[in-house]
Amino acid sequence: MTIGDRRRVVIAGVRPLVNGGAYPGKATAGLPLEVSATMFAEGTEPLLGWVRLGPPERAEAQSECALEPLGQDRYSAWVTPREPGTWEFAVIGLVDEFGGWLRDTRIRLEAGQDVDLDLRDGARLAELRLARPGLTKADRGALESLAETLKSGKSQTSRVHAAGRAAVVGLMRRTVDRSRATEVGPFRLWVDRKRAGFSAWYEMFPRSEGAVQPRSGTFSSAAKRLGAVAAMGFDVLYLPPIHPIGTTNRKGRNNALASGPDDPGSPWAIGSAMGGHDAVDPALGTIADFDAFVARARRAGLEVALDYALQCSPDHPWVREHPEWFRHRVDASIRYAENPPKRYQDIYPIDFESSDAANLWIALRDVMLFWIEHGVRIFRVDNPHTKSFRFWEWLIGEVHRAHPDVLFLSEAFTRPAVMQHLARLGFSQSYTYFTWRNAKWELGEYLYELSQTELVDFFRPNFWVNTPDILHAVLQHGGAAAFRLRAVLAAITCPSWGMYSGYELVENVPAREGSEEYLDSEKYQLRPRNWEDPHSIAPFITQLNAIRRRHAAAIAQLSTLRLHHIDGDYLLCVSRSTAARDDVLLLVVNLDPFQAHEAMTWLDLGALGLAAEHPFEAHDELTGATYVWQGSANFVRLDPAVQPAHILHLRKR
Amino acid sequence: MTIGDRRRVVIAGVRPLVNGGAYPGKATAGLPLEVSATMFAEGTEPLLGWVRLGPPERAEAQSECALEPLGQDRYSAWVTPREPGTWEFAVIGLVDEFGGWLRDTRIRLEAGQDVDLDLRDGARLAELRLARPGLTKADRGALESLAETLKSGKSQTSRVHAAGRAAVVGLMRRTVDRSRATEVGPFRLWVDRKRAGFSAWYEMFPRSEGAVQPRSGTFSSAAKRLGAVAAMGFDVLYLPPIHPIGTTNRKGRNNALASGPDDPGSPWAIGSAMGGHDAVDPALGTIADFDAFVARARRAGLEVALDYALQCSPDHPWVREHPEWFRHRVDASIRYAENPPKRYQDIYPIDFESSDAANLWIALRDVMLFWIEHGVRIFRVDNPHTKSFRFWEWLIGEVHRAHPDVLFLSEAFTRPAVMQHLARLGFSQSYTYFTWRNAKWELGEYLYELSQTELVDFFRPNFWVNTPDILHAVLQHGGAAAFRLRAVLAAITCPSWGMYSGYELVENVPAREGSEEYLDSEKYQLRPRNWEDPHSIAPFITQLNAIRRRHAAAIAQLSTLRLHHIDGDYLLCVSRSTAARDDVLLLVVNLDPFQAHEAMTWLDLGALGLAAEHPFEAHDELTGATYVWQGSANFVRLDPAVQPAHILHLRKR
Repeated sequence: MTIGDRRRVVIAGVRPLVNGGAYPGKATAGLPLEVSATMFAEGTEPLLGWVRLGPPERAEAQSECALEPLGQDRYSAWVTPREPGTWEFAVIGLVDEFGGWLRDTRIRLEAGQDVDLDLRDGARLAELRLARPGLTKADRGALESLAETLKSGKSQTSRVHAAGRAAVVGLMRRTVDRSRATEVGPFRLWVDRKRAGFSAWYEMFPRSEGAVQPRSGTFSSAAKRLGAVAAMGFDVLYLPPIHPIGTTNRKGRNNALASGPDDPGSPWAIGSAMGGHDAVDPALGTIADFDAFVARARRAGLEVALDYALQCSPDHPWVREHPEWFRHRVDASIRYAENPPKRYQDIYPIDFESSDAANLWIALRDVMLFWIEHGVRIFRVDNPHTKSFRFWEWLIGEVHRAHPDVLFLSEAFTRPAVMQHLARLGFSQSYTYFTWRNAKWELGEYLYELSQTELVDFFRPNFWVNTPDILHAVLQHGGAAAFRLRAVLAAITCPSWGMYSGYELVENVPAREGSEEYLDSEKYQLRPRNWEDPHSIAPFITQLNAIRRRHAAAIAQLSTLRLHHIDGDYLLCVSRSTAARDDVLLLVVNLDPFQAHEAMTWLDLGALGLAAEHPFEAHDELTGATYVWQGSANFVRLDPAVQPAHILHLRKR
Repeated sequence: MTIGDRRRVVIAGVRPLVNGGAYPGKATAGLPLEVSATMFAEGTEPLLGWVRLGPPERAEAQSECALEPLGQDRYSAWVTPREPGTWEFAVIGLVDEFGGWLRDTRIRLEAGQDVDLDLRDGARLAELRLARPGLTKADRGALESLAETLKSGKSQTSRVHAAGRAAVVGLMRRTVDRSRATEVGPFRLWVDRKRAGFSAWYEMFPRSEGAVQPRSGTFSSAAKRLGAVAAMGFDVLYLPPIHPIGTTNRKGRNNALASGPDDPGSPWAIGSAMGGHDAVDPALGTIADFDAFVARARRAGLEVALDYALQCSPDHPWVREHPEWFRHRVDASIRYAENPPKRYQDIYPIDFESSDAANLWIALRDVMLFWIEHGVRIFRVDNPHTKSFRFWEWLIGEVHRAHPDVLFLSEAFTRPAVMQHLARLGFSQSYTYFTWRNAKWELGEYLYELSQTELVDFFRPNFWVNTPDILHAVLQHGGAAAFRLRAVLAAITCPSWGMYSGYELVENVPAREGSEEYLDSEKYQLRPRNWEDPHSIAPFITQLNAIRRRHAAAIAQLSTLRLHHIDGDYLLCVSRSTAARDDVLLLVVNLDPFQAHEAMTWLDLGALGLAAEHPFEAHDELTGATYVWQGSANFVRLDPAVQPAHILHLRKR
């Protein structure tokens, strides 16, 4: 603390700020971001505040936005970074001496006090501005004129009125002396491209598509499915690993320890004599075939995301070339993966504590750069929580330096602290607990945590309704109604959502009762499917993605998500809205796939930008029906046999 | 991020850490403090962690304490800084390779797997330790012997058993290689002396004590009251300003704008021709009389706290000597205090933005140093939120550098962000909203916030039941029963509490209906009192302070406060406990001063260190009765006419 420091404003509690600034907050290009801070000063004058935002060290590209008071010393501004990369922001606060003077002088005038001296004090405030360098000629003239008016012989009422004109208030804000302003920052923001904050993912095993047992499908046959996936409205196509698969201890169907000659193996057992992480499984085609697949996907409007799974089969070239990248036992054998007493002898984990760690990291980075060269800009990272956290921070930084458009989806299903930390380290999106949040209170708490706490500053959830490993009991037992309601929840409450192929066909048979694994899991065998199944819910999925696109700005804005009270244990009511509240959706879901439920909503009208006294339209985007509602309490009834949810576009009449 | 960084453990969420380390956390000498952190690493091995604590830059005086897991990746250790001043702590984490090996080997053995190779891997872990420098001869021998045993021909079961012996686990922890440990910190702690964390305050106007209207009491006459105050169990005696009082615009009785010739004036209108902040009001005596008063108080067991009120009457010497320390208007007059349209013409605020701010700050500091020279070590700071925040941070730092035993009580009744920030800047204790928290839910939320959130890391509440400005409606209307219940709440739920004299006499007449001001407020007139009033609740206050002293370690430990469910809207149930749970109090208060209430408790037995299956004794410290309770549900009935609360000392049988 400097003696005599005359900066009065204190700025604290800045958001987004991750671990006190140790990690950058996350923003999305083109998506409004709320920057907020607690500001106060001794005394009672109002404050002026600004957010300065821009790419670092480019003062000319930085812009300022005024902070608005939210109450309780909290201020906020919505800013919009325009392009991916590192940005930074600062928060600036200053006592509004003129504003305080104007407010107090008005109060005194209204109380019948003589304010002539006050008006002359005000004139001096204007005159002091004249000494400031850099004033425009117009501002100089306006300040002189203001001072004259305030000192003039006009009535006190008219002088106070003159001081309060919007043009004068604007003048006095514009010309304020910032030499005693408090400035905190700059704080880093990592800005991802738009898709990081709004995406619909479809996962498929390319080997299944066009497979004729025992012959694998290929990139070429799988490409025929691209149009249908795009037509459902998805924009990211995620492929499990496409590399050569090991044969040593290869798993058979349904995770059997022994495999038959026709078993294709798990794609996550990466590496064989045919190559490792930078090779393509010959069964799928060549690298040229992959390139063609990526190009065709792009033309269909789909971006291909690859799996980045850092483990090796015993046949991976690295096992021979770099044995020091693995952990060895006293008998010189390599330690395979284990979760004692379970053994995974088809997988060797990489040893991030290797004495050759630096070269290992470079090799792992180069794998990613190789696929970036082949047009991939999204990686779904397999089990990042079982690999070095320091490696991830380094890798993402390295890749982003050259390729700020690369996105990383963290596939960590583990404890909250670990999942959150991976997001801090730079993962663009994260898998979540969504599949295990089914009860009303669970969903409510989870949506609140993801949208209304500091998690929203750095953790971008991606709600998957299923994965090759997760077929939740709700889906096993709830029939197509359950598949529909879970899809609605994921697609409408979360900016990003995903499904693994087969979901649209209501595939719901587990490996065994009590298991979340699929029977005849595609991880271990080819699963060609009949997409023409008349029971497919693909049309419903298509409708959801279309609604998402029509309301993309509202769906992408997670921080404005609000829960609304609705009676009963089975109906959930959630609103989604743009920052400006110019597009507002209200979702009411029946969480019970078996029975109809009805209840009254108790809407938080303020959060919806609605007034109690005006009716509004609630247009159901699923059915096309339009209801006229008013106030907080409105009746809803949802029968899962008919429709799982209302997705209501709220419109002022 | 360094390429190839092999430190696996991530440490985050360290507490106490105030604004990411921008301000020191607070600790109290001799009082256990919980240091906690989130720690995890990739993989499944357990972790080892330590807190290193000590005065900065004195490695020899630092000590380490092992972190224990709390679940969900959270770890904690209780440490006890021993003396006031700046301390620092670091958190260290490391993967427990041996612990993981032992756990997994046991699991494999139990699953019937051959663990011979595992045992040999374990022997290597011991052998690797032999290369470490600084091993004691005993440890070296133990490691060699362990390696031999693990490689020996003994049965696998006996070898695993040998590895799991406590001595071996201790050996392997002690000799662990920390070269890949993660260390975060050092983080600053400010350690205050014991009284900061446990104090009972009594406020009195010395001029009233022994006054014979219109003659003021003196330090000498007031000293006669010291014994009685100490006998009630208080340990801090707080005096409103004792300086010469201005005569210009002096306020009369009941805050009248005009004063009569015998009106003594408000002690907060500081300064006259007789002197300013470093002078003593001649009506009270001389500086020598003050010194004698302080000495007599000390002998009685009372520490004198002085008011530090940075404002001046128009007659203060600084107004003449340093007019630039005040704010001037265009007519050269000094701006008096205002809250438009209200005017406080007897008070000139100090201008912390003065062009001579540096000299002003030094003068203000020197005032405090003057009183420190006269034996004062506690200052109750008047309205700190209306003065420069940067000044407070500087002042407290300056004073603490030379006098780490000085305590500062912040008298800020303002918005939460501001009150909290003053505590961050270094105030040792803070006034609170306690007087306005009367309903069960209000008290519950407030106690939770103060004890269970990060506030507890830096904000030490002091619960005042009244002040010269605050006579809450509950006291105005609730009779002696209300005075008793509010005293119980303050004294038992809060490590520090205070009352302003007259409380024990149940003075409860407001200036007018709806006002919290006292009628005939002592701020503006002399108020000699009849301490022999038979209705005095002084005996009850005495009992409360005695209970506090008997259970000082539990009462001082705010972070272990827990709320327990109890049925109904009028009974509140709160436990207080030492860190080790070797002293546990359970408070049950009837918040209704008018009627008896009865209900069942629903105790959180875990928080009390109790087991559901064992009866325990609940000894009422107020009545001496002992109840035998068991389990969570126990019946209580409290009649305010008989006793306002149970203060139960819980004892295992």
